[in-house]
Amino acid sequence: MTASAEPEIVSSQKCFGGTQSVYRHHSTETGTSMRFGVFLPPQASAGPVPALYYLAGLTCTEENFIVKAGAQRVAAELGIALIAPDTSPRGLAYPGEDDAYDFGTGAGFYVDATEAPWRVGYRMASYIARELPALINAHLPIDPARTGIFGHSMGGHGALTLALKYPDLYKSVSAFAPIVAPMRCPWGEKALGLYLGPDRAAWQAYDATALVEARGWAGPPILIDQGTADPFLERELKPDLLREACAARGVALTLRLQDGYDHSYFFIATFMADHIRHHARYL
Amino acid sequence: MTASAEPEIVSSQKCFGGTQSVYRHHSTETGTSMRFGVFLPPQASAGPVPALYYLAGLTCTEENFIVKAGAQRVAAELGIALIAPDTSPRGLAYPGEDDAYDFGTGAGFYVDATEAPWRVGYRMASYIARELPALINAHLPIDPARTGIFGHSMGGHGALTLALKYPDLYKSVSAFAPIVAPMRCPWGEKALGLYLGPDRAAWQAYDATALVEARGWAGPPILIDQGTADPFLERELKPDLLREACAARGVALTLRLQDGYDHSYFFIATFMADHIRHHARYL
Repeated sequence: MTASAEPEIVSSQKCFGGTQSVYRHHSTETGTSMRFGVFLPPQASAGPVPALYYLAGLTCTEENFIVKAGAQRVAAELGIALIAPDTSPRGLAYPGEDDAYDFGTGAGFYVDATEAPWRVGYRMASYIARELPALINAHLPIDPARTGIFGHSMGGHGALTLALKYPDLYKSVSAFAPIVAPMRCPWGEKALGLYLGPDRAAWQAYDATALVEARGWAGPPILIDQGTADPFLERELKPDLLREACAARGVALTLRLQDGYDHSYFFIATFMADHIRHHARYL
Repeated sequence: MTASAEPEIVSSQKCFGGTQSVYRHHSTETGTSMRFGVFLPPQASAGPVPALYYLAGLTCTEENFIVKAGAQRVAAELGIALIAPDTSPRGLAYPGEDDAYDFGTGAGFYVDATEAPWRVGYRMASYIARELPALINAHLPIDPARTGIFGHSMGGHGALTLALKYPDLYKSVSAFAPIVAPMRCPWGEKALGLYLGPDRAAWQAYDATALVEARGWAGPPILIDQGTADPFLERELKPDLLREACAARGVALTLRLQDGYDHSYFFIATFMADHIRHHARYL
């Protein structure tokens, strides 16, 4: 199966007048079979619709967002497709791939790895930004010119870094409790070190705060929701680092601290409609 | 731990301005530790709120509804608590308890069993209708006079039969794809036969269609949504049997056939808001 082959439908179920499907395909970037979710709103039967990519966090598959986020309702109302990829290749059987929740399987960190053995299959940045949209745009009623991206935690990091690196590809970006500065937190330092090697200069392309400092962002305001009861807030997430970088560069950031919310999909579901409406304004 | 002891909090997370919790307690009806979900809307901090009990289907625990149904949003808006019990006792280790998905663990069918060994612990009817509300009303800001009940599939059967048997306890009832006539479908005949024995006269107290025929229902319209692409529709669910019984008894039934929807939580989530608003009118 080549990159131009049809993705294969795993499941397809009616939901809020649209269709929630799961597909699988052979990825040339990862060298594995990859799954992804697609919600097509009812408006897609009349013509191409904008697409909003959602990148999930550590340990997740494509399923978490589909089942737990409650996103389909508002996407159906606004006529937006939701694309939910997996968080890593699976089954490559590299040594150590399944040893920890925060590295390897379920923890691709949306980078193109450069260290052996990861550099062969752990190419999630190119997979998300290039291969998957090409596949989706070729086979589904999606308008490629209207793409937004958001995500949660590690996936918020992925959404921010991909939008900042490829502003031509993404018209809007938002995140729930993102890792905004992986160069300066334990999750990020571990993953970037193992995927990219010890030279920290190479990490900057995968650090949202460093990317804002280096490149800015001329798109619409970046929306971030962060729960104040999130157990990872101080050690891993550190939204103030991004806030400072955005302030220094004049980048519009709407950072909302949500009192008493934690890191879970109960938090995400609560503010999901706000995020989809935010993207809809710019797509 | 006795029935009057405090239920113990397993988890508690902020969600749509309210709190989604899971509790466990020792049940005197089942003789086991039982878990249940409670969503308290923000209005509960100001005083007692109505409660809507949701009974889940085969194989489910208290978690499915909490995570997949997207119910908290509308419950928070309308000020209604959501109570999500488990679907059976767990861990009794009766012979055969874990052999099939449609009997025993995860398949209590909301009956008080009379056959050995099930009659000791499989007392889900009394647990749901009596023990659990007494516990909840004693420990949480719930108005006991304003209680509704709904459910899915086996849980739709549970909701309908409990409301019809105890109209003094439930002001409103609705269901998603319920088993409306377990005496006349394979799931029901198996479960009722094993829990209640071969005398089918004893089954009538747990058959919604037979209960409507015998007792009617003087409450507000019964709302039922049923997907036309539900794979269990013709063999197990048979909503026409209930429709005929309601017509014969003059019972108000709103039976909506939803084109293309299946038996999943994507179907349930799509129509969840309609159901909660239906209950809110009468609670």
